[in-house]
Amino acid sequence: MKIKAWAALERGKPLTEWSYDPPSLAPHEVLLRVEACGLCHSDIHMIDNDWGQSRYPLVPGHEVVGTVLAVGSGVSELSVGLRVGVGWQRSSCLACDDCLRGNENCCDRIQSVIGDGYGGFADHIVMDSRFCFPLPDQIPTEHAGPLMCGGITVYSGLRAAGLSSGQRVGIIGVGGLGHLAVQFASRLGNQVTVFTTSENKAEEAAKLGAHDTVLVRNGKPAKTPSRSFNLILSTVPAALPLESYLNMLCTDGALCMVGVPNEPLTFSLFPLLVKRRRLLASPIGGRAQMREMLDVAARFGVRPIIEKFRLTEINTAIAKVRNNTIRYRAVLVPH
Amino acid sequence: MKIKAWAALERGKPLTEWSYDPPSLAPHEVLLRVEACGLCHSDIHMIDNDWGQSRYPLVPGHEVVGTVLAVGSGVSELSVGLRVGVGWQRSSCLACDDCLRGNENCCDRIQSVIGDGYGGFADHIVMDSRFCFPLPDQIPTEHAGPLMCGGITVYSGLRAAGLSSGQRVGIIGVGGLGHLAVQFASRLGNQVTVFTTSENKAEEAAKLGAHDTVLVRNGKPAKTPSRSFNLILSTVPAALPLESYLNMLCTDGALCMVGVPNEPLTFSLFPLLVKRRRLLASPIGGRAQMREMLDVAARFGVRPIIEKFRLTEINTAIAKVRNNTIRYRAVLVPH
Repeated sequence: MKIKAWAALERGKPLTEWSYDPPSLAPHEVLLRVEACGLCHSDIHMIDNDWGQSRYPLVPGHEVVGTVLAVGSGVSELSVGLRVGVGWQRSSCLACDDCLRGNENCCDRIQSVIGDGYGGFADHIVMDSRFCFPLPDQIPTEHAGPLMCGGITVYSGLRAAGLSSGQRVGIIGVGGLGHLAVQFASRLGNQVTVFTTSENKAEEAAKLGAHDTVLVRNGKPAKTPSRSFNLILSTVPAALPLESYLNMLCTDGALCMVGVPNEPLTFSLFPLLVKRRRLLASPIGGRAQMREMLDVAARFGVRPIIEKFRLTEINTAIAKVRNNTIRYRAVLVPH
Repeated sequence: MKIKAWAALERGKPLTEWSYDPPSLAPHEVLLRVEACGLCHSDIHMIDNDWGQSRYPLVPGHEVVGTVLAVGSGVSELSVGLRVGVGWQRSSCLACDDCLRGNENCCDRIQSVIGDGYGGFADHIVMDSRFCFPLPDQIPTEHAGPLMCGGITVYSGLRAAGLSSGQRVGIIGVGGLGHLAVQFASRLGNQVTVFTTSENKAEEAAKLGAHDTVLVRNGKPAKTPSRSFNLILSTVPAALPLESYLNMLCTDGALCMVGVPNEPLTFSLFPLLVKRRRLLASPIGGRAQMREMLDVAARFGVRPIIEKFRLTEINTAIAKVRNNTIRYRAVLVPH
């Protein structure tokens, strides 16, 4: 049997059909049949080798929902037939302090699904079983994929910034990440203000649970909310007027960036100093937090809004993500 | 009676003898006889109007130790004869959320001792009684002053960065602030590494409790410690190679700046992202934390190393602070 995949054969190229021989399963590995796979902007960064770590042929796809077809000899936690989700992370050392603390996402020897193997735009995928997460029944297959990367990224970022309840929370950007952040923050009992360039997205954010909108014009928020935020999550990869946003935080408030601009940041430290504010950034999430996020999403009804494509339409979906016209997450299904 | 003080009559000028009529005491005010007063670099920033908030004649001095001579009609917590300390903060609104939470140092209506009144380089000072702190008997008068601004600044910054015990702590700079930070961190059960340009200061830091030194050459740390820090406190106002220091932090580690450069910071967010690190800044401390700091300093023997001057030698002391040749804090005494 060959695994039939869609791969970029060279940097920046459209994906083409390509197949490979599946490796024999290592003791901790599983073979999954792909049932659905979300398309994340990181897939496109990897296709374009923006981070200098891509190897070709590159099979993107790291928001995978799959059914376990076969398990390696050492796998005891997953069984054939189980529905699982896979996110950005393929594996980690499971031995360092970060891993032992549940911060596998911060492991120095982190492996990614698409940088250290072949990803989910395929009929099958071989994965480290320890980074496959059983999915709660309440989450439909086509909705689960975007939670595995977009969902955990914003959930973990919100928690790192101190998300609790009863708080004022700002979300910068209403896109694949932002529209999930609005749901997590509001359904967990917080008051959410979105910062967006689009009045149309503002309306949609309100339906998702946002309580207020600040329009962004020429990169700058058009007004300053009268009460300050406990935390602000930035989901946009663009450079931000950081001082404006920092000044909207209350004492001990945090600005957490999960959308990371490639350019260096430049800002005055004084907005941090006067109110003992914090700037942080957060990458995906560890395994325990992944389970927690899926449980919260299941119980509180957090669901991505998706556009569905057949896997054969993958290049159309990629073009829409490049054009920033997806509302809000593209999901590829086999048929 | 006139209060005899030393004042800058114009921006940047040496201090000259100058006197003023003390205002009659408001109900919450006290009159203190100055027993000693530390000289902080912020006094010089104010003399030079570096922050655009100075009014002249300007009487510097905000690390005051005084004896209560008279109390206003509403003062019940302080009595005549008591020895108290005064720091940067003269007053706050005592009504906003920050004040009610014990973050008076973050109050939007904060008043400073030397920006909103006349400071401690004088024979007497009139103060808001609610920002006068009774001093533990164990702390000698000439040592107490530098704790009131330098001490609270580093203690509060260390706590904001998550100081606990058993941690690896980096202290950037061994000066008026840094030599106190080394003592607080090490005596509270942490392992301290200092970053300094001076081998001589490294030796002195070791005597104060530092366990390790990294020399700084041309602004850059000469080596990277093999184990990462839980937190790093920067006590230097200069621009730093922030990415180098951020990369020395463990997951969830914090770099806290209490020495604040006037220029904007520029750095890549990736060192924050990969290990969910934090950058923060912290200004002095609230009243409850001031008491806590004094109690800790008393019980654990944290004492500034001082150079004593007579108040008539104030301009000599200022010149030494400007030249960065004080080891480590100048304290002015009346006679």
